[in-house]
Amino acid sequence: MTFLRKSETTRAAIIERALDLASHEGLEALTLGSLADSMKMSKSGVVARVGSRETLQLAVLDDYRRRFEAQVLRPSTSRPPGLPRLRLLFEMSLAQVGEGRTAGCFYISCAAEYDDRPGALRIEVSSSVAAWREAFERSAAQAVALGQLASDTDPAQLVFEIYALLLAAQHDTRLLERSEGIAHARAGFERLLARCLPSDKATIAP
Amino acid sequence: MTFLRKSETTRAAIIERALDLASHEGLEALTLGSLADSMKMSKSGVVARVGSRETLQLAVLDDYRRRFEAQVLRPSTSRPPGLPRLRLLFEMSLAQVGEGRTAGCFYISCAAEYDDRPGALRIEVSSSVAAWREAFERSAAQAVALGQLASDTDPAQLVFEIYALLLAAQHDTRLLERSEGIAHARAGFERLLARCLPSDKATIAP
Repeated sequence: MTFLRKSETTRAAIIERALDLASHEGLEALTLGSLADSMKMSKSGVVARVGSRETLQLAVLDDYRRRFEAQVLRPSTSRPPGLPRLRLLFEMSLAQVGEGRTAGCFYISCAAEYDDRPGALRIEVSSSVAAWREAFERSAAQAVALGQLASDTDPAQLVFEIYALLLAAQHDTRLLERSEGIAHARAGFERLLARCLPSDKATIAP
Repeated sequence: MTFLRKSETTRAAIIERALDLASHEGLEALTLGSLADSMKMSKSGVVARVGSRETLQLAVLDDYRRRFEAQVLRPSTSRPPGLPRLRLLFEMSLAQVGEGRTAGCFYISCAAEYDDRPGALRIEVSSSVAAWREAFERSAAQAVALGQLASDTDPAQLVFEIYALLLAAQHDTRLLERSEGIAHARAGFERLLARCLPSDKATIAP
C-alpha cells in the first residue's frame, strides 16, 4: 500500500517535471533519457512508471488539461452565463499566457508544434484547444441571447478575435520579450466588447 | 566554372528542400541525415555544401527572409505610405499564412519553436519578426500622421491587434483546420481600421 502510494507520487512528480521540460523545450523535444537525467533516475525507472515516450507525452497533455480545466474552464462556470463568464474566461486564459512556470500557455506552444504532425498528440492538442474555443463561443452566444451584446454579433468572429489577442500576448511576451503584450491584449478585449455593445447600452457591467 | 555553378545550384536546391521539411516538421526537427535522405544524397555531400546543422538552419531562415522581403516587405513600399501600404502589408502577410508550400508563414511557425531556445536561431527569428512588425508600425504611424487614421490611434496597439489576426489565421487554418480563419482575419482587419477612422471620414479608401 505504502509502496503503491510512493510509486504513484513518483509518477506524478515525473509527469510534472516532464511538463516543465516540455513547456520550455517543446513536447517533441521531450525524451525519456533527458527526463530521467533531470530526475536523477535511471531511464528504466522512468519507463517503468510512465511507459513509452508517446505515453509520457500524452500524460503530460492530460496533466495540463486537468490544470487548465481547474484554472480556466471550471472557474468561469461559477460566474453568471454570458458576459461575466466570457470576461473570466479571458482573464484566466491571459493568466495562463503570463504563467512563468509553464512558459506561457502550454496549448499555445503545442499548437504550432503539432499543427503539421498527424497522430495522437495532434488530436489531443487540437481537441483541447477546440474545447477551449467552444467555451468562449458558448459564452459569447449566451451574451448575445441575453442582450448583453448586440444581436448582430457573430460569436465565431468575436471569439476568433479574442483568441487572436491571447496568441499575440503569448507571442509578444515570449518571442519579442515585450512586456506590454498582456496590456495590449486586455485593451484589445475591452475595445472588442465595446464594439459589440447593444446600441442602448453605454457601458458594460464587468 | 560549370562545376561551381552546379555546386551552387545544388546548395540552393538543398536549402529549398530544407525549408520545405522545416516548415512542416519544425526547424529543430531538421537534421543533416534526414535532409540527405530526402535529397537522395550522402550526408557528407550535404555537409560539404551546407556545413553544420546550425549553419543549415540559419541558411534556411536566411532563404525565407529573402522570400519574405520579396513577397511581403518590398511590394508594400511600392504603395503610397500610410493606409495603402498598411493594407498591402496585411494582404501579403495573410498570403504567407495561407501559403501551402511552406505550411503557412514560416516565421509564425518558428516563433513558438524558438521563443524559449536561446541562441543564434532565436536571435534570427526574433529580429526578422521585429522587422516585420516595425514595417507595420511605420505604416500605421504614417497613416496617423497623414490624417488617414484618427490622431489618438496608438500604432503599437493597432499593430498588435493586426498581428494577432495573422497569428489566429495561421492557428485556425492549420491546427483547427477551420478554413474560415483567413476570412475572419480579413473581417477583423476591416473593423480594426474602421474603429480608427478619423471622425470626419465615413469610409476608408482602399
